[in-house]
Amino acid sequence: MSETSLLAALRGFLAENRLQALLIPTADPHLSEYIHDHFALRKAASGFTGSAGTLVVTEKNAALWCDSRYWEQAQRELVCGIFLMRDGKEDTPAISDWLHEVLAAGSKIGVDGRLMSSKAFSALKREMQVKGLELCALAKDPADLWRERPPLRFAPIFEHTAAPQKREEKIARLQTLLQKRGADAFLVTSLDEIAWLLNLRGSDIPHNPVFYSFLWVEKNAGATLFAALSAVPETLRARLEKEGIALRNKDGFEAFLAAQSAVTVLIDEGNTSEALTEILQRGEAISIQTDKSPVALWKAVKTEEETDLIRCAMKKDGTALIRFYAWLEKALRNGTPLTETEAAAKLGEFRAALPGFVDLSFETICAFGPNAALPHYQAHPGRDAALVGASFLLIDSGAQFQEGTTDITRTTAVGEPTEEMKEDYTAVLRAHIRLAKARFPEGLPSQAVDAIAREPLWERLCDYGHGTGHGVGFFLNVHEGPQRISYPRFSAGRDTVLSASTAMVSGMLTSNEPGLYRPGKWGIRIENLVSNRKAGESEFGRFLEFETVTLCPIDLKAVLAERLLEDEIRWINDYHNLVLNTLKDAVKDEPETLDWLIRSTRPIAK
Amino acid sequence: MSETSLLAALRGFLAENRLQALLIPTADPHLSEYIHDHFALRKAASGFTGSAGTLVVTEKNAALWCDSRYWEQAQRELVCGIFLMRDGKEDTPAISDWLHEVLAAGSKIGVDGRLMSSKAFSALKREMQVKGLELCALAKDPADLWRERPPLRFAPIFEHTAAPQKREEKIARLQTLLQKRGADAFLVTSLDEIAWLLNLRGSDIPHNPVFYSFLWVEKNAGATLFAALSAVPETLRARLEKEGIALRNKDGFEAFLAAQSAVTVLIDEGNTSEALTEILQRGEAISIQTDKSPVALWKAVKTEEETDLIRCAMKKDGTALIRFYAWLEKALRNGTPLTETEAAAKLGEFRAALPGFVDLSFETICAFGPNAALPHYQAHPGRDAALVGASFLLIDSGAQFQEGTTDITRTTAVGEPTEEMKEDYTAVLRAHIRLAKARFPEGLPSQAVDAIAREPLWERLCDYGHGTGHGVGFFLNVHEGPQRISYPRFSAGRDTVLSASTAMVSGMLTSNEPGLYRPGKWGIRIENLVSNRKAGESEFGRFLEFETVTLCPIDLKAVLAERLLEDEIRWINDYHNLVLNTLKDAVKDEPETLDWLIRSTRPIAK
Repeated sequence: MSETSLLAALRGFLAENRLQALLIPTADPHLSEYIHDHFALRKAASGFTGSAGTLVVTEKNAALWCDSRYWEQAQRELVCGIFLMRDGKEDTPAISDWLHEVLAAGSKIGVDGRLMSSKAFSALKREMQVKGLELCALAKDPADLWRERPPLRFAPIFEHTAAPQKREEKIARLQTLLQKRGADAFLVTSLDEIAWLLNLRGSDIPHNPVFYSFLWVEKNAGATLFAALSAVPETLRARLEKEGIALRNKDGFEAFLAAQSAVTVLIDEGNTSEALTEILQRGEAISIQTDKSPVALWKAVKTEEETDLIRCAMKKDGTALIRFYAWLEKALRNGTPLTETEAAAKLGEFRAALPGFVDLSFETICAFGPNAALPHYQAHPGRDAALVGASFLLIDSGAQFQEGTTDITRTTAVGEPTEEMKEDYTAVLRAHIRLAKARFPEGLPSQAVDAIAREPLWERLCDYGHGTGHGVGFFLNVHEGPQRISYPRFSAGRDTVLSASTAMVSGMLTSNEPGLYRPGKWGIRIENLVSNRKAGESEFGRFLEFETVTLCPIDLKAVLAERLLEDEIRWINDYHNLVLNTLKDAVKDEPETLDWLIRSTRPIAK
Repeated sequence: MSETSLLAALRGFLAENRLQALLIPTADPHLSEYIHDHFALRKAASGFTGSAGTLVVTEKNAALWCDSRYWEQAQRELVCGIFLMRDGKEDTPAISDWLHEVLAAGSKIGVDGRLMSSKAFSALKREMQVKGLELCALAKDPADLWRERPPLRFAPIFEHTAAPQKREEKIARLQTLLQKRGADAFLVTSLDEIAWLLNLRGSDIPHNPVFYSFLWVEKNAGATLFAALSAVPETLRARLEKEGIALRNKDGFEAFLAAQSAVTVLIDEGNTSEALTEILQRGEAISIQTDKSPVALWKAVKTEEETDLIRCAMKKDGTALIRFYAWLEKALRNGTPLTETEAAAKLGEFRAALPGFVDLSFETICAFGPNAALPHYQAHPGRDAALVGASFLLIDSGAQFQEGTTDITRTTAVGEPTEEMKEDYTAVLRAHIRLAKARFPEGLPSQAVDAIAREPLWERLCDYGHGTGHGVGFFLNVHEGPQRISYPRFSAGRDTVLSASTAMVSGMLTSNEPGLYRPGKWGIRIENLVSNRKAGESEFGRFLEFETVTLCPIDLKAVLAERLLEDEIRWINDYHNLVLNTLKDAVKDEPETLDWLIRSTRPIAK
């Protein structure tokens, strides 16, 4: 079924259901960041393969909204007849404005209520109402028309055996909170929250060790997990049930929810779908409490035992990384022909050889020269660049271990860097170090430290379009909330921005990844993971600082040492000393790697 | 009428109006930051004289909520029987929680709807609803019971003759916006917005050159100003009416609003009172649009002509300041006995002698030694400290000129500072300089630069409890929005904070005032006003930087030059060079002041 015939079928759906437009978001019923192809109707109907964007189809028109990361790609990929709407550009209409333009007043717009949070749905419904349009959650699934729809397959669910916190403690903590709030049950729909609460993992979404499921936790009883029964080994099922966690078929979840009555349910409107919320709203004597999910924050704050395990994962990952970079240096020195995908594959081999390796934590970004300037570059064999000539090689990669999830970016000067490249690289390094050595009050909104990293770049009239840091899961998704280091961006044409920020507390694991991208020239990013730890206490309160837990030398070739402040020189020498001392034993029998490690961690001076 | 008999009268009001509680905020019908004593019912009934706080009175109980700045003062001043509720402390109940505790379900709580924005009223009403309580806007004014209520007196309204933008242009700009939004009229209730739009000033509130009034601007007609007719000179009235601005008696405003029908009115819910909003809601076929007032932003962005005038005001103010500080140095050297209030009065004399001086822009804060550690210290003759012994003298002061409003803080080492004092002073100076020399992207949320100032203090586990910067009016209120440099604070017990921030644009005038306060020891604050100006443009967009417009030497006695970075040394030497060159001519015939100026702006080196 081609994109155009799918588009025609969707238009048939419009007519049949007396709708004037259909909204097709990029989402699954758990509002995951990454989704299984089963839910990729937007991609199938539009041709656009990016990981975010919303397709809108009317009888006569179709348009796709996506943000600046994807403008080029969407332009190239979109099937004929679908307008590209550059989201965030000042003259780009909002979806509701565009629909207001092309549809008659009173038109009905449908969306699969399972693919939109009730919060987002309500906001959009209100926005459309003002413009005389009616948004409704569909009773039928438009994806049923998609004949080649890939089936969902459920991989085995397994225990996260390394998890130091017991699931009964986690569930008890949630039950105590329900007690305190006067709620009877909490509905967990985010896959990583379910995996974290139950210390279970899966592999239903590539690189994200989660499994499709829903969880219902009751104040006074245990919990009920709705999963694919075929994915749960018998021994695990028995163990869960012994611990008071009932197992039921995922397909029965909506009926289960519909059968509830006379209960107070706590939900997070931001990650519970409109469809599930509507089921609860229709229930008899059901009272709904809404708040941010407490699980997101608990999950973000790693315990000391978890942080210890994360340090182990970092040591393992660092070993693979130094083996790779030593190999790479030799290969380049020897003039071995090498492309981006080949380099990425080799790094993958070194990682896969490590004990306890489960998966990559995301598709490795390996980008050379101008490719590194594309924020979401993905190399494809045969179409990728060869590592030839003088430029920067940017590799952003990570792995999943039972002991933790890693995420690291290094930018390596291949050949002799120019002065301009050195200035750029040194500025990014300064940004990285400023943040790495920052201290700040405990409880500071996470957004607030962002400017500390950007200041050295701003000074040179430079900036980067992405956030400085995201939360990272514990053998879970490489992107998680709620903390985030970034400055809030304004919507087009607005002069006020409303943004939510989370209090920084000890134990949070976050990335520190400033960058600089010169379109057509090169891209630079230096990323380590940092763990919030106590820095000290004074009459002004408790203060935190970052412990850099990622272990891998930072390339020194393009560093202009004279541009660094004394304390910045000290930081990088201390960091390299730590990397050397922590990793050298692991490669003591690998002379070439050891030699590379020693050379790469040499102290620098002004 | 004593506080206790007023409290008894208010309880009588409760019974008469079948209310179970009365909320008495600190506000006037324009939701001004500073209010006339006429509106100070909260103060009269509680005894607490602080400038912020809410009194709640029930039949049996009374309690006052105020933030940490006032805890000590409220403890001292509150009349017997009124509980102090330390707002922001973790175990302090919210007003609605406390009322839920002490009142029966279904209780009615009254508040004067003129003293609360409709936004705040709606939020509190919802909050109370959840707890089974009903908030209602009163039909009768409880302040009528207050027998000694000071009458409102209306000072003459006068032209802001120096204003470079014509009022007809400002009003036309507003009318164009109404046109674009499809609204018929805009209701202006903020006094500084009215003053700015009309280029008129008054003096109804001490130090704030505004006048009590309302303004109604229509899309297709002119505007109608509701003011005290006695305050408008006949010539001004004639001029306004010629320009299409009708003048009507302020007392008729509510009736005027109630008589409107079939119009779409734009209001800012955040600064329009619940009472006025309810009048509009009751109107026939009135449609209400809500948004942030556009005038607040227009007012914040000074034009180039305005910034030129502000530079003139700064030069004048700087002349008074250097005369004062030269005089002070001599007085201290000569051992002249001197108290805080005497020093403040002398500074006031130097300012009042300047051409074009209108008023102070706020009550001068002159605090010596431990007094400077109290954020809202106000010295009183007879009870104030003598400038004796070695400590810091902190003076935060400002003036109103037709050319602009000034606001400056200097901290001067009296006697020989200790090493600890020098470390503190140098850290605050570094914080000030870091922000003063920062560059940042145009359109950055104003909050985002805050960490740049605080980083040098956080590094030493220090911080300050106030914001780093507030907007400053143009011959208007010394505090104005919408931009603000500060990190958002969490409410007690919350781990997420939602905050609004404004895009930084060229022309905004903001304070740069980091500080450090050691209770019982000393307080330090260094404040200049800074104007956003273009720093340059690159492939990453347009960048802004701050032009420091305040002109007065920063005391060098307690500076540890070796702690400053090279670029920080350069900044202070450049700044002092500018101060010297701009001010020396004005005092060329005053040898002592000139000598002091030259010595105080000497270059420093590591």
